[in-house]
Amino acid sequence: MKRTDDVQVEQLPPELKAFWEERERLNEIVFEQANLTIKRFFSLDGQAYREGALSARTKEMLGLVASLVLRCDDCIKYHVIRCHQEGISDAEFGEALSVGLVVGGSIVIPHLRRAFRWWKALKEAASGAP
Amino acid sequence: MKRTDDVQVEQLPPELKAFWEERERLNEIVFEQANLTIKRFFSLDGQAYREGALSARTKEMLGLVASLVLRCDDCIKYHVIRCHQEGISDAEFGEALSVGLVVGGSIVIPHLRRAFRWWKALKEAASGAP
Amino acid sequence: MKRTDDVQVEQLPPELKAFWEERERLNEIVFEQANLTIKRFFSLDGQAYREGALSARTKEMLGLVASLVLRCDDCIKYHVIRCHQEGISDAEFGEALSVGLVVGGSIVIPHLRRAFRWWKALKEAASGAP
Amino acid sequence: MKRTDDVQVEQLPPELKAFWEERERLNEIVFEQANLTIKRFFSLDGQAYREGALSARTKEMLGLVASLVLRCDDCIKYHVIRCHQEGISDAEFGEALSVGLVVGGSIVIPHLRRAFRWWKALKEAASGAP
Amino acid sequence: MKRTDDVQVEQLPPELKAFWEERERLNEIVFEQANLTIKRFFSLDGQAYREGALSARTKEMLGLVASLVLRCDDCIKYHVIRCHQEGISDAEFGEALSVGLVVGGSIVIPHLRRAFRWWKALKEAASGAP
Amino acid sequence: MKRTDDVQVEQLPPELKAFWEERERLNEIVFEQANLTIKRFFSLDGQAYREGALSARTKEMLGLVASLVLRCDDCIKYHVIRCHQEGISDAEFGEALSVGLVVGGSIVIPHLRRAFRWWKALKEAASGAP
Repeated sequence: MKRTDDVQVEQLPPELKAFWEERERLNEIVFEQANLTIKRFFSLDGQAYREGALSARTKEMLGLVASLVLRCDDCIKYHVIRCHQEGISDAEFGEALSVGLVVGGSIVIPHLRRAFRWWKALKEAASGAP
Repeated sequence: MKRTDDVQVEQLPPELKAFWEERERLNEIVFEQANLTIKRFFSLDGQAYREGALSARTKEMLGLVASLVLRCDDCIKYHVIRCHQEGISDAEFGEALSVGLVVGGSIVIPHLRRAFRWWKALKEAASGAP
Repeated sequence: MKRTDDVQVEQLPPELKAFWEERERLNEIVFEQANLTIKRFFSLDGQAYREGALSARTKEMLGLVASLVLRCDDCIKYHVIRCHQEGISDAEFGEALSVGLVVGGSIVIPHLRRAFRWWKALKEAASGAP
Repeated sequence: MKRTDDVQVEQLPPELKAFWEERERLNEIVFEQANLTIKRFFSLDGQAYREGALSARTKEMLGLVASLVLRCDDCIKYHVIRCHQEGISDAEFGEALSVGLVVGGSIVIPHLRRAFRWWKALKEAASGAP
Repeated sequence: MKRTDDVQVEQLPPELKAFWEERERLNEIVFEQANLTIKRFFSLDGQAYREGALSARTKEMLGLVASLVLRCDDCIKYHVIRCHQEGISDAEFGEALSVGLVVGGSIVIPHLRRAFRWWKALKEAASGAP
Repeated sequence: MKRTDDVQVEQLPPELKAFWEERERLNEIVFEQANLTIKRFFSLDGQAYREGALSARTKEMLGLVASLVLRCDDCIKYHVIRCHQEGISDAEFGEALSVGLVVGGSIVIPHLRRAFRWWKALKEAASGAP
């Protein structure tokens, strides 16, 4: 769960800041109770996104699209934050989402709507906009 | 997104009115940021439900059952509103849901419960009941 | 499993005839071994598609679209046969599939391709074409 | 829906008590409107988890893991409560979740986090802890 | 992938023997090419099913039901073989499948049919029947 | 469906050549029967993967991972061929698959095995190996 440190929580917009803090609280509850298999899985999850032959930014987009087609809001939220942090451009973000939309169909639209809202909020928070 | 106009938002019960308004707000956020592929997808989504060889009411029931087995609450909410608007009867609504329940299994039950709650609220709102 | 009787197996095109016969063989294996819960589920499955407030043809289209978005070839095959038997027109069949395609996305395309192949084979078999 | 009676609602922690009461309210709304197929499905759903060749506790773990990999929070919540009631140990609960996590992948992690939170809350409520 | 050794491949019925041998051939191809994350995942997958607070037989049934509701034939095949090897009774096998059927709905029926066929073949092979 | 032209079918290994030819045959059957919505969807599907802010190679990896977590063999086959054609390296291919494996869980392993088999066959065909 090292990646948690990378995100500057204080600079997140309110909805995403609340998500991140809840996520950390719950991770503590998991780690109090989890067996070795679960702990190893969490470690593997971090490892899969680390810079390698593919850049961290490409991997975050892979994670974003996988989360979109599987329709998991918490996962999308996480990867939207990470994509923003990796400096992905608006056009790149939009094209990644459009691959996910075409693959996954209209059933992903409610998640796509929220992904764009989170993206907009991240950009506004970064630019000091309200 | 033409279909939005068809729904008389003021007459929706509170939970569904809030859903509809949020949906419109988010659609604006999507359209500010979306590329051509995404815009075309939204247009295609509208087109798929238009009256043709199959009536709009049959297509809304197809959309409802597809949304139920894929377990997307926002999508179910949308099609429940549209089914009500198309004048689908209680018995037709129940039979469409029962196909979805049998195909999709008990995992759809939480969504089925809410679908019936939204349906009841729509009927009460239409009849002026509290 | 009463509906089995309705299909005139001898008139099915070869690929679908083989499917139907295998399905009947396997149903026998299920019924040799199944407990009461499973037997009741099979009976409920038949019941859900019976003519009621909605016609059998509408219900078969609901089953077809649900099967398409859930991407189950055996289920699609079954409902394609039943839709043909219920006299659904080419245009109706195509519109039902297009709702499923838009809801489910490009991931359903391999199944949509086969659905059209089965439909074409059923029509050719019915018309005495090769 | 007989199983409802088995749970001592007053002893549930607040979040799960609210869930259970809402679930009962919605079940009433379903039963006001449901046709025979839906009612029979609900009855079959109860029947599947009854003590038989497999114990009720094993069946609840099967239901828990199925709900986890299908990522249905309401279903997970229900089976977490029932597992607790059946006296499943912390280690058993953790191992069942780890099978679900490995089968279902990181996409189930948000649900796993909440499952552990609900489990912890149930244990605290049972022990009189805050 | 240690569990492979546990299965006496020579005693499997033909369809399952062919599956097992293909699975081993493909595992070799994976291991030639896989990175560390993938190798660790495979190791974790083996670890999740090992005897612990829950018995290996309970864990195999958890894996079976998870595979059934996710509708993966190869995964079901694997767990059917392992359940047979763990000495699960016919009644236990049927009850595990019925939980999966009720949770997952009629869309799992094609897989349930094959699961019963594989189970029957395993029993016949074990008893020396044709 | 323009992308079809890009692939040099004669140079594909036998299993993938057969897949590609069948895919083209079925596309013809679709286009004989498809309505405008379906034709537009196919066109949109081609458009989503075109070079833009993201390179075609990145988009093919997005498509590969989305197909892997949704567990569609035909879709995976298609994107494996296209990734190879775009000159993706072995290490990049393996890392994309490992993101998909971690997100999607062990249920994707049967597809991952085949993805590696197809990749190996493509490399052998390209190098003139048997």
